[in-house]
Amino acid sequence: MTTILKLGGSVLTEKDRPETVDESNLRRAATAVARAATVAEPAPEENDLVVVHGGGSFGHHHAAEHGVTTTDGTRDPGAVRAIHDAMKRLNGAVVAALADAGCPALPVHPLSAAHRHGEGELTLPVAVVQSMLGEGFVPVLHGDVVVHEDLGATILSGDEIVVALGSALDADRVGVCSAVPGVLDDGDVVARVESLGDVEAVLGGSAATDVTGGMAAKVRELLALNAPAYIFDLEGLPAFLDGEEPGTRIG
Amino acid sequence: MTTILKLGGSVLTEKDRPETVDESNLRRAATAVARAATVAEPAPEENDLVVVHGGGSFGHHHAAEHGVTTTDGTRDPGAVRAIHDAMKRLNGAVVAALADAGCPALPVHPLSAAHRHGEGELTLPVAVVQSMLGEGFVPVLHGDVVVHEDLGATILSGDEIVVALGSALDADRVGVCSAVPGVLDDGDVVARVESLGDVEAVLGGSAATDVTGGMAAKVRELLALNAPAYIFDLEGLPAFLDGEEPGTRIG
Repeated sequence: MTTILKLGGSVLTEKDRPETVDESNLRRAATAVARAATVAEPAPEENDLVVVHGGGSFGHHHAAEHGVTTTDGTRDPGAVRAIHDAMKRLNGAVVAALADAGCPALPVHPLSAAHRHGEGELTLPVAVVQSMLGEGFVPVLHGDVVVHEDLGATILSGDEIVVALGSALDADRVGVCSAVPGVLDDGDVVARVESLGDVEAVLGGSAATDVTGGMAAKVRELLALNAPAYIFDLEGLPAFLDGEEPGTRIG
Repeated sequence: MTTILKLGGSVLTEKDRPETVDESNLRRAATAVARAATVAEPAPEENDLVVVHGGGSFGHHHAAEHGVTTTDGTRDPGAVRAIHDAMKRLNGAVVAALADAGCPALPVHPLSAAHRHGEGELTLPVAVVQSMLGEGFVPVLHGDVVVHEDLGATILSGDEIVVALGSALDADRVGVCSAVPGVLDDGDVVARVESLGDVEAVLGGSAATDVTGGMAAKVRELLALNAPAYIFDLEGLPAFLDGEEPGTRIG
Protein backbone atom coordinates (compact mmCIF):
# COMPACT_ATOMS: atom_id res chain seq x y z
CA MET A 1 0.00 0.00 0.00
CA THR A 2 1.70 3.21 -1.18
CA THR A 3 0.33 6.56 -0.09
CA ILE A 4 1.48 9.97 -1.27
CA LEU A 5 0.65 12.89 0.97
CA LYS A 6 1.02 16.49 -0.12
CA LEU A 7 1.17 19.04 2.68
CA GLY A 8 0.27 22.40 1.18
CA GLY A 9 2.65 25.30 1.66
CA SER A 10 -0.34 27.39 2.73
CA VAL A 11 -0.99 24.91 5.57
CA LEU A 12 2.59 24.77 6.86
CA THR A 13 3.56 28.44 6.58
CA GLU A 14 2.13 31.84 7.35
CA LYS A 15 1.39 33.04 3.88
CA ASP A 16 1.81 36.75 4.48
CA ARG A 17 5.06 36.64 6.46
CA PRO A 18 8.20 35.67 4.49
CA GLU A 19 9.80 32.42 5.62
CA THR A 20 7.57 31.90 8.64
CA VAL A 21 6.50 28.40 9.63
CA ASP A 22 3.00 27.97 11.07
CA GLU A 23 4.36 25.99 14.02
CA SER A 24 0.98 24.92 15.33
CA ASN A 25 -0.22 23.58 11.96
CA LEU A 26 3.13 21.92 11.30
CA ARG A 27 3.09 20.13 14.66
CA ARG A 28 -0.50 19.01 14.09
CA ALA A 29 0.32 17.63 10.64
CA ALA A 30 3.52 15.97 11.88
CA THR A 31 1.70 14.25 14.72
CA ALA A 32 -0.90 12.80 12.36
CA VAL A 33 1.73 11.65 9.84
CA ALA A 34 4.01 10.13 12.50
CA ARG A 35 1.08 8.17 13.94
CA ALA A 36 0.23 6.78 10.50
CA ALA A 37 3.88 6.01 9.73
CA THR A 38 4.44 4.10 12.95
CA VAL A 39 1.28 2.61 14.45
CA ALA A 40 -1.22 2.42 11.61
CA GLU A 41 -2.90 -0.69 10.26
CA PRO A 42 -1.70 -2.39 8.12
CA ALA A 43 1.69 -2.77 9.80
CA PRO A 44 4.14 0.07 9.06
CA GLU A 45 6.36 -2.12 6.89
CA GLU A 46 3.44 -2.71 4.52
CA ASN A 47 2.52 0.94 4.55
CA ASP A 48 4.74 3.03 2.32
CA LEU A 49 4.28 6.76 2.85
CA VAL A 50 5.86 9.56 0.80
CA VAL A 51 5.45 13.16 1.94
CA VAL A 52 5.68 16.13 -0.44
CA HIS A 53 5.32 19.72 0.69
CA GLY A 54 4.85 23.02 -1.08
CA GLY A 55 6.71 26.27 -0.76
CA GLY A 56 4.30 28.64 0.96
CA SER A 57 5.98 31.80 2.17
CA PHE A 58 9.45 30.26 1.72
CA GLY A 59 9.73 29.44 -1.97
CA HIS A 60 7.17 31.70 -3.65
CA HIS A 61 8.67 34.88 -2.26
CA HIS A 62 12.12 34.20 -3.73
CA ALA A 63 10.72 32.78 -6.98
CA ALA A 64 8.63 35.91 -7.52
CA GLU A 65 11.56 38.19 -6.64
CA HIS A 66 13.70 36.56 -9.32
CA GLY A 67 10.89 36.17 -11.87
CA VAL A 68 11.19 32.38 -11.98
CA THR A 69 8.13 30.23 -12.73
CA THR A 70 7.53 26.70 -14.01
CA THR A 71 8.16 28.03 -17.54
CA ASP A 72 10.26 31.20 -17.08
CA GLY A 73 13.79 30.14 -16.24
CA THR A 74 16.80 31.81 -14.73
CA ARG A 75 20.50 31.42 -15.49
CA ASP A 76 21.46 33.36 -12.37
CA PRO A 77 23.05 30.84 -9.99
CA GLY A 78 22.36 33.23 -7.10
CA ALA A 79 18.63 33.12 -7.87
CA VAL A 80 18.66 29.32 -8.05
CA ARG A 81 20.48 29.11 -4.73
CA ALA A 82 18.16 31.65 -3.05
CA ILE A 83 15.02 29.68 -3.97
CA HIS A 84 16.60 26.30 -3.26
CA ASP A 85 18.10 27.34 0.08
CA ALA A 86 14.78 28.80 1.24
CA MET A 87 13.02 25.56 0.34
CA LYS A 88 15.69 23.54 2.14
CA ARG A 89 15.09 25.67 5.25
CA LEU A 90 11.35 24.87 5.13
CA ASN A 91 12.10 21.20 4.39
CA GLY A 92 14.47 21.16 7.36
CA ALA A 93 11.64 22.42 9.61
CA VAL A 94 9.18 19.86 8.21
CA VAL A 95 11.60 16.94 8.54
CA ALA A 96 12.54 18.04 12.08
CA ALA A 97 8.87 18.26 13.13
CA LEU A 98 8.17 14.82 11.67
CA ALA A 99 11.25 13.43 13.41
CA ASP A 100 10.22 15.01 16.74
CA ALA A 101 6.85 13.28 16.37
CA GLY A 102 8.58 9.94 15.83
CA CYS A 103 8.38 9.63 12.06
CA PRO A 104 11.51 8.15 10.33
CA ALA A 105 11.67 11.08 7.89
CA LEU A 106 14.54 11.71 5.46
CA PRO A 107 14.83 14.75 3.18
CA VAL A 108 14.92 14.46 -0.62
CA HIS A 109 15.86 17.67 -2.44
CA PRO A 110 14.56 17.74 -6.02
CA LEU A 111 17.32 20.03 -7.39
CA SER A 112 19.74 17.17 -6.64
CA ALA A 113 17.57 14.54 -8.30
CA ALA A 114 15.30 15.95 -11.01
CA HIS A 115 15.61 18.06 -14.14
CA ARG A 116 13.54 19.20 -17.09
CA HIS A 117 14.15 18.65 -20.77
CA GLY A 118 13.82 21.42 -23.33
CA GLU A 119 10.08 20.87 -23.75
CA GLY A 120 9.53 21.07 -19.99
CA GLU A 121 9.15 17.32 -19.57
CA LEU A 122 10.28 16.25 -16.10
CA THR A 123 12.75 13.48 -15.28
CA LEU A 124 12.40 12.55 -11.61
CA PRO A 125 14.25 9.30 -10.84
CA VAL A 126 12.33 7.43 -8.14
CA ALA A 127 14.91 4.76 -7.29
CA VAL A 128 16.12 6.75 -4.28
CA VAL A 129 12.56 7.21 -3.00
CA GLN A 130 11.87 3.50 -3.49
CA SER A 131 15.07 2.51 -1.70
CA MET A 132 14.17 4.78 1.24
CA LEU A 133 10.72 3.18 1.44
CA GLY A 134 12.27 -0.27 1.24
CA GLU A 135 14.48 0.51 4.24
CA GLY A 136 11.58 1.83 6.32
CA PHE A 137 12.20 5.55 5.95
CA VAL A 138 9.66 8.22 4.99
CA PRO A 139 11.02 10.37 2.13
CA VAL A 140 10.05 14.04 2.37
CA LEU A 141 10.25 15.93 -0.94
CA HIS A 142 9.40 19.55 -1.62
CA GLY A 143 8.64 22.08 -4.32
CA ASP A 144 11.97 23.34 -5.61
CA VAL A 145 13.86 24.90 -8.48
CA VAL A 146 15.33 22.41 -10.96
CA VAL A 147 17.66 22.69 -13.93
CA HIS A 148 15.77 23.07 -17.19
CA GLU A 149 17.56 22.39 -20.48
CA ASP A 150 17.94 25.61 -22.49
CA LEU A 151 16.18 27.73 -19.84
CA GLY A 152 18.65 27.53 -16.95
CA ALA A 153 16.40 26.55 -14.07
CA THR A 154 12.62 26.65 -13.49
CA ILE A 155 10.20 25.93 -10.64
CA LEU A 156 9.04 22.39 -9.93
CA SER A 157 5.88 22.60 -7.84
CA GLY A 158 4.95 20.21 -5.07
CA ASP A 159 1.78 19.37 -7.02
CA GLU A 160 3.82 18.33 -10.06
CA ILE A 161 5.99 16.12 -7.87
CA VAL A 162 2.87 14.46 -6.42
CA VAL A 163 1.57 13.63 -9.88
CA ALA A 164 4.98 12.39 -11.10
CA LEU A 165 5.45 10.20 -8.01
CA GLY A 166 1.85 8.98 -8.14
CA SER A 167 2.48 7.51 -11.59
CA ALA A 168 6.06 6.35 -11.08
CA LEU A 169 5.36 4.63 -7.75
CA ASP A 170 1.94 3.36 -8.88
CA ALA A 171 0.49 4.85 -5.69
CA ASP A 172 -2.71 3.45 -4.20
CA ARG A 173 -3.90 6.71 -2.66
CA VAL A 174 -2.99 10.37 -2.98
CA GLY A 175 -3.91 12.99 -0.39
CA VAL A 176 -3.65 16.75 -0.75
CA CYS A 177 -3.87 18.57 2.58
CA SER A 178 -4.74 22.16 1.71
CA ALA A 179 -6.02 25.32 3.36
CA VAL A 180 -9.59 24.50 2.32
CA PRO A 181 -11.62 21.38 3.27
CA GLY A 182 -12.05 20.28 -0.37
CA VAL A 183 -13.41 21.48 -3.69
CA LEU A 184 -16.05 23.99 -2.70
CA ASP A 185 -19.36 24.68 -4.44
CA ASP A 186 -20.84 27.81 -2.96
CA GLY A 187 -19.13 27.10 0.35
CA ASP A 188 -20.06 23.42 0.54
CA VAL A 189 -17.53 20.62 0.09
CA VAL A 190 -18.23 18.63 -3.08
CA ALA A 191 -18.01 14.92 -2.20
CA ARG A 192 -16.63 13.74 -5.50
CA VAL A 193 -15.31 15.07 -8.80
CA GLU A 194 -15.06 12.43 -11.52
CA SER A 195 -14.41 14.37 -14.71
CA LEU A 196 -13.23 17.63 -16.15
CA GLY A 197 -16.89 18.40 -16.81
CA ASP A 198 -17.57 18.18 -13.08
CA VAL A 199 -14.72 20.58 -12.43
CA GLU A 200 -16.08 23.16 -14.80
CA ALA A 201 -19.60 22.80 -13.45
CA VAL A 202 -18.39 23.31 -9.90
CA LEU A 203 -15.55 25.78 -10.28
CA GLY A 204 -17.03 27.69 -13.19
CA GLY A 205 -15.35 28.66 -16.43
CA SER A 206 -12.83 26.51 -18.22
CA ALA A 207 -10.60 24.27 -16.16
CA ALA A 208 -7.87 24.96 -18.69
CA THR A 209 -7.60 28.64 -17.85
CA ASP A 210 -7.32 28.02 -14.15
CA VAL A 211 -9.28 31.13 -13.14
CA THR A 212 -9.70 29.82 -9.63
CA GLY A 213 -6.09 30.27 -8.65
CA GLY A 214 -4.86 26.73 -8.78
CA MET A 215 -7.74 24.51 -7.64
CA ALA A 216 -8.93 23.70 -11.17
CA ALA A 217 -5.40 22.91 -12.34
CA LYS A 218 -4.81 20.79 -9.25
CA VAL A 219 -8.03 18.84 -9.82
CA ARG A 220 -7.22 18.36 -13.50
CA GLU A 221 -3.79 16.92 -12.69
CA LEU A 222 -5.14 14.66 -9.96
CA LEU A 223 -7.81 13.36 -12.38
CA ALA A 224 -5.01 12.12 -14.63
CA LEU A 225 -3.74 9.77 -11.89
CA ASN A 226 -4.72 6.11 -11.74
CA ALA A 227 -5.18 6.36 -7.97
CA PRO A 228 -8.04 8.05 -6.15
CA ALA A 229 -6.97 11.43 -4.75
CA TYR A 230 -8.50 13.42 -1.91
CA ILE A 231 -8.40 17.12 -1.18
CA PHE A 232 -8.99 18.00 2.49
CA ASP A 233 -7.71 20.31 5.21
CA LEU A 234 -5.80 19.64 8.45
CA GLU A 235 -9.05 18.58 10.10
CA GLY A 236 -9.38 15.77 7.57
CA LEU A 237 -5.74 14.61 7.63
CA PRO A 238 -6.03 11.92 10.35
CA ALA A 239 -9.09 10.46 8.59
CA PHE A 240 -7.25 10.31 5.26
CA LEU A 241 -4.29 8.58 6.88
CA ASP A 242 -6.72 6.10 8.50
CA GLY A 243 -7.97 5.11 5.06
CA GLU A 244 -11.17 7.14 5.18
CA GLU A 245 -12.41 9.54 2.52
CA PRO A 246 -12.39 13.10 3.86
CA GLY A 247 -12.97 16.20 1.76
CA THR A 248 -13.42 15.83 -1.98
CA ARG A 249 -12.58 12.62 -3.77
CA ILE A 250 -11.02 13.24 -7.19
CA GLY A 251 -11.38 10.41 -9.69
CA MET B 1 36.79 19.02 -21.69
CA THR B 2 35.38 17.63 -18.44
CA THR B 3 37.33 18.04 -15.21
CA ILE B 4 36.45 16.55 -11.84
CA LEU B 5 38.03 18.20 -8.82
CA LYS B 6 37.98 16.69 -5.38
CA LEU B 7 38.62 19.07 -2.51
CA GLY B 8 39.70 17.00 0.47
CA GLY B 9 37.85 17.38 3.74
CA SER B 10 41.23 17.71 5.45
CA VAL B 11 41.97 20.76 3.27
CA LEU B 12 38.64 22.54 3.85
CA THR B 13 38.15 21.89 7.55
CA GLU B 14 40.13 21.95 10.76
CA LYS B 15 40.49 18.27 11.41
CA ASP B 16 40.68 18.38 15.17
CA ARG B 17 37.78 20.78 15.82
CA PRO B 18 34.28 19.44 15.12
CA GLU B 19 32.44 21.22 12.33
CA THR B 20 35.03 23.95 11.84
CA VAL B 21 35.74 25.27 8.35
CA ASP B 22 39.34 26.28 7.56
CA GLU B 23 38.21 29.63 6.20
CA SER B 24 41.58 30.61 4.79
CA ASN B 25 42.05 27.34 2.86
CA LEU B 26 38.43 27.38 1.67
CA ARG B 27 38.76 30.91 0.33
CA ARG B 28 42.01 30.03 -1.40
CA ALA B 29 40.49 26.96 -3.04
CA ALA B 30 37.33 28.85 -4.02
CA THR B 31 39.32 31.64 -5.65
CA ALA B 32 41.30 29.17 -7.77
CA VAL B 33 38.16 27.23 -8.79
CA ALA B 34 36.17 30.36 -9.60
CA ARG B 35 38.98 31.65 -11.80
CA ALA B 36 39.09 28.36 -13.71
CA ALA B 37 35.30 28.23 -14.00
CA THR B 38 35.00 31.74 -15.39
CA VAL B 39 38.16 32.97 -17.16
CA ALA B 40 40.10 29.86 -18.05
CA GLU B 41 41.16 28.72 -21.50
CA PRO B 42 39.43 27.08 -23.26
CA ALA B 43 36.32 29.25 -22.93
CA PRO B 44 34.20 28.45 -19.85
CA GLU B 45 31.39 26.98 -21.98
CA GLU B 46 33.80 24.31 -23.28
CA ASN B 47 35.19 23.70 -19.83
CA ASP B 48 32.92 21.51 -17.69
CA LEU B 49 33.95 21.42 -14.06
CA VAL B 50 32.46 19.25 -11.31
CA VAL B 51 33.51 19.77 -7.71
CA VAL B 52 33.31 17.05 -5.04
CA HIS B 53 34.32 17.60 -1.46
CA GLY B 54 34.95 15.33 1.50
CA GLY B 55 33.63 15.42 5.03
CA GLY B 56 36.59 16.46 7.18
CA SER B 57 35.56 17.40 10.69
CA PHE B 58 31.87 17.65 9.66
CA GLY B 59 30.92 14.20 8.44
CA HIS B 60 33.45 11.87 10.03
CA HIS B 61 32.63 12.98 13.55
CA HIS B 62 28.93 12.10 13.23
CA ALA B 63 29.60 8.93 11.23
CA ALA B 64 31.99 7.67 13.92
CA GLU B 65 29.58 8.61 16.70
CA HIS B 66 26.84 6.50 15.12
CA GLY B 67 29.15 3.69 13.99
CA VAL B 68 28.30 4.16 10.31
CA THR B 69 30.90 3.32 7.64
CA THR B 70 30.81 2.47 3.94
CA THR B 71 29.83 -1.09 4.90
CA ASP B 72 28.29 -0.79 8.39
CA GLY B 73 24.81 0.67 7.99
CA THR B 74 22.31 2.31 10.29
CA ARG B 75 18.53 2.10 10.40
CA ASP B 76 18.33 5.01 12.83
CA PRO B 77 16.83 7.94 10.88
CA GLY B 78 18.28 10.33 13.47
CA ALA B 79 21.78 9.10 12.70
CA VAL B 80 21.22 9.47 8.95
CA ARG B 81 19.93 13.00 9.43
CA ALA B 82 22.79 13.97 11.78
CA ILE B 83 25.45 12.92 9.25
CA HIS B 84 23.57 14.32 6.26
CA ASP B 85 22.76 17.66 7.92
CA ALA B 86 26.40 18.13 8.98
CA MET B 87 27.53 17.45 5.42
CA LYS B 88 24.93 19.89 4.08
CA ARG B 89 26.28 22.55 6.45
CA LEU B 90 29.81 22.04 5.08
CA ASN B 91 28.48 21.94 1.51
CA GLY B 92 26.61 25.20 2.19
CA ALA B 93 29.89 26.81 3.28
CA VAL B 94 31.74 25.48 0.21
CA VAL B 95 29.03 26.56 -2.24
CA ALA B 96 28.81 29.99 -0.58
CA ALA B 97 32.59 30.48 -0.80
CA LEU B 98 32.58 29.45 -4.46
CA ALA B 99 29.66 31.79 -5.13
CA ASP B 100 31.40 34.67 -3.34
CA ALA B 101 34.41 34.09 -5.59
CA GLY B 102 32.17 34.30 -8.68
CA CYS B 103 31.72 30.61 -9.48
CA PRO B 104 28.20 29.55 -10.64
CA ALA B 105 28.06 26.76 -8.06
CA LEU B 106 24.96 24.68 -7.30
CA PRO B 107 24.73 22.04 -4.55
CA VAL B 108 24.01 18.37 -5.29
CA HIS B 109 23.23 16.26 -2.22
CA PRO B 110 23.98 12.55 -2.79
CA LEU B 111 21.37 11.27 -0.28
CA SER B 112 18.73 12.73 -2.63
CA ALA B 113 20.24 11.19 -5.75
CA ALA B 114 22.22 8.03 -5.05
CA HIS B 115 21.73 4.71 -3.30
CA ARG B 116 23.45 1.37 -2.88
CA HIS B 117 22.19 -2.08 -3.76
CA GLY B 118 22.52 -5.03 -1.42
CA GLU B 119 26.04 -5.86 -2.56
CA GLY B 120 27.19 -2.29 -2.02
CA GLU B 121 27.10 -1.38 -5.70
CA LEU B 122 26.40 2.33 -6.15
CA THR B 123 23.72 3.87 -8.37
CA LEU B 124 24.50 7.55 -8.90
CA PRO B 125 22.38 9.01 -11.72
CA VAL B 126 24.43 11.67 -13.51
CA ALA B 127 21.68 13.24 -15.63
CA VAL B 128 21.22 16.08 -13.12
CA VAL B 129 24.98 16.78 -13.05
CA GLN B 130 25.08 16.73 -16.86
CA SER B 131 22.09 19.08 -17.12
CA MET B 132 23.74 21.50 -14.67
CA LEU B 133 26.95 21.46 -16.74
CA GLY B 134 24.92 21.97 -19.92
CA GLU B 135 23.33 25.09 -18.45
CA GLY B 136 26.67 26.55 -17.34
CA PHE B 137 26.49 25.72 -13.63
CA VAL B 138 29.20 24.06 -11.53
CA PRO B 139 27.72 21.13 -9.56
CA VAL B 140 29.19 20.71 -6.08
CA LEU B 141 28.73 17.22 -4.60
CA HIS B 142 29.95 15.90 -1.27
CA GLY B 143 30.61 12.81 0.75
CA ASP B 144 27.31 11.81 2.35
CA VAL B 145 25.23 9.04 3.83
CA VAL B 146 23.07 7.15 1.30
CA VAL B 147 20.36 4.52 1.58
CA HIS B 148 21.78 1.01 1.25
CA GLU B 149 19.43 -1.87 0.46
CA ASP B 150 19.17 -4.26 3.43
CA LEU B 151 21.59 -2.20 5.57
CA GLY B 152 19.59 1.00 6.11
CA ALA B 153 22.12 3.65 5.15
CA THR B 154 25.91 3.69 4.73
CA ILE B 155 28.61 6.27 4.02
CA LEU B 156 29.38 7.32 0.45
CA SER B 157 32.85 8.90 0.42
CA GLY B 158 33.86 11.82 -1.73
CA ASP B 159 36.55 9.60 -3.28
CA GLU B 160 33.95 7.04 -4.34
CA ILE B 161 31.85 9.82 -5.91
CA VAL B 162 34.91 11.05 -7.85
CA VAL B 163 35.52 7.60 -9.29
CA ALA B 164 31.83 7.05 -10.13
CA LEU B 165 31.56 10.46 -11.83
CA GLY B 166 34.89 10.01 -13.60
CA SER B 167 33.55 6.94 -15.36
CA ALA B 168 29.97 8.10 -15.89
CA LEU B 169 30.95 11.51 -17.27
CA ASP B 170 33.95 10.11 -19.18
CA ALA B 171 36.06 12.82 -17.55
CA ASP B 172 39.24 14.05 -19.24
CA ARG B 173 41.09 14.92 -16.03
CA VAL B 174 40.64 14.22 -12.34
CA GLY B 175 42.27 16.23 -9.59
CA VAL B 176 42.48 15.39 -5.91
CA CYS B 177 43.47 18.35 -3.75
CA SER B 178 44.67 16.87 -0.47
CA ALA B 179 46.61 17.85 2.63
CA VAL B 180 49.84 16.45 1.16
CA PRO B 181 51.54 17.54 -2.11
CA GLY B 182 51.25 14.09 -3.70
CA VAL B 183 52.21 10.48 -3.13
CA LEU B 184 55.30 10.73 -0.95
CA ASP B 185 58.33 8.45 -1.01
CA ASP B 186 60.45 9.21 2.02
CA GLY B 187 59.23 12.82 2.00
CA ASP B 188 59.66 13.41 -1.74
CA VAL B 189 56.73 13.75 -4.16
CA VAL B 190 56.64 10.83 -6.61
CA ALA B 191 56.09 12.26 -10.10
CA ARG B 192 54.05 9.38 -11.46
CA VAL B 193 52.41 6.15 -10.36
CA GLU B 194 51.42 3.91 -13.24
CA SER B 195 50.54 0.60 -11.65
CA LEU B 196 49.59 -1.15 -8.46
CA GLY B 197 53.18 -2.40 -8.36
CA ASP B 198 54.39 1.20 -8.22
CA VAL B 199 52.02 1.86 -5.34
CA GLU B 200 53.34 -1.03 -3.32
CA ALA B 201 56.94 -0.14 -4.08
CA VAL B 202 56.37 3.42 -2.93
CA LEU B 203 53.87 3.10 -0.12
CA GLY B 204 55.12 -0.25 1.14
CA GLY B 205 53.08 -3.32 1.96
CA SER B 206 50.00 -4.41 0.09
CA ALA B 207 47.85 -1.76 -1.53
CA ALA B 208 44.88 -3.98 -0.73
CA THR B 209 45.27 -3.66 3.02
CA ASP B 210 45.50 0.13 2.94
CA VAL B 211 48.00 0.35 5.76
CA THR B 212 48.80 3.96 4.91
CA GLY B 213 45.47 5.35 6.02
CA GLY B 214 43.77 5.92 2.73
CA MET B 215 46.46 6.96 0.21
CA ALA B 216 46.98 3.47 -1.20
CA ALA B 217 43.23 2.91 -1.57
CA LYS B 218 42.86 6.32 -3.19
CA VAL B 219 45.64 5.59 -5.67
CA ARG B 220 44.21 2.16 -6.45
CA GLU B 221 40.79 3.64 -7.23
CA LEU B 222 42.23 6.45 -9.34
CA LEU B 223 44.28 3.90 -11.32
CA ALA B 224 41.02 2.26 -12.38
CA LEU B 225 39.90 5.45 -14.14
CA ASN B 226 40.39 6.00 -17.86
CA ALA B 227 41.46 9.59 -17.24
CA PRO B 228 44.77 10.74 -15.77
CA ALA B 229 44.41 11.79 -12.14
CA TYR B 230 46.61 14.06 -10.06
CA ILE B 231 47.12 14.26 -6.33
CA PHE B 232 48.40 17.64 -5.12
CA ASP B 233 47.88 20.16 -2.32
CA LEU B 234 46.42 23.68 -2.28
CA GLU B 235 49.70 25.01 -3.63
CA GLY B 236 49.25 22.91 -6.76
CA LEU B 237 45.55 23.61 -7.30
CA PRO B 238 45.91 26.62 -9.66
CA ALA B 239 48.42 24.69 -11.79
CA PHE B 240 46.07 21.69 -12.06
CA LEU B 241 43.21 23.95 -13.10
CA ASP B 242 45.50 25.55 -15.70
CA GLY B 243 46.06 22.15 -17.30
CA GLU B 244 49.48 21.54 -15.78
CA GLU B 245 50.60 18.43 -13.93
CA PRO B 246 51.28 19.24 -10.28
CA GLY B 247 51.96 16.65 -7.59
CA THR B 248 51.74 12.99 -8.47
CA ARG B 249 50.21 11.80 -11.72
CA ILE B 250 48.22 8.57 -11.29
CA GLY B 251 47.81 6.50 -14.44
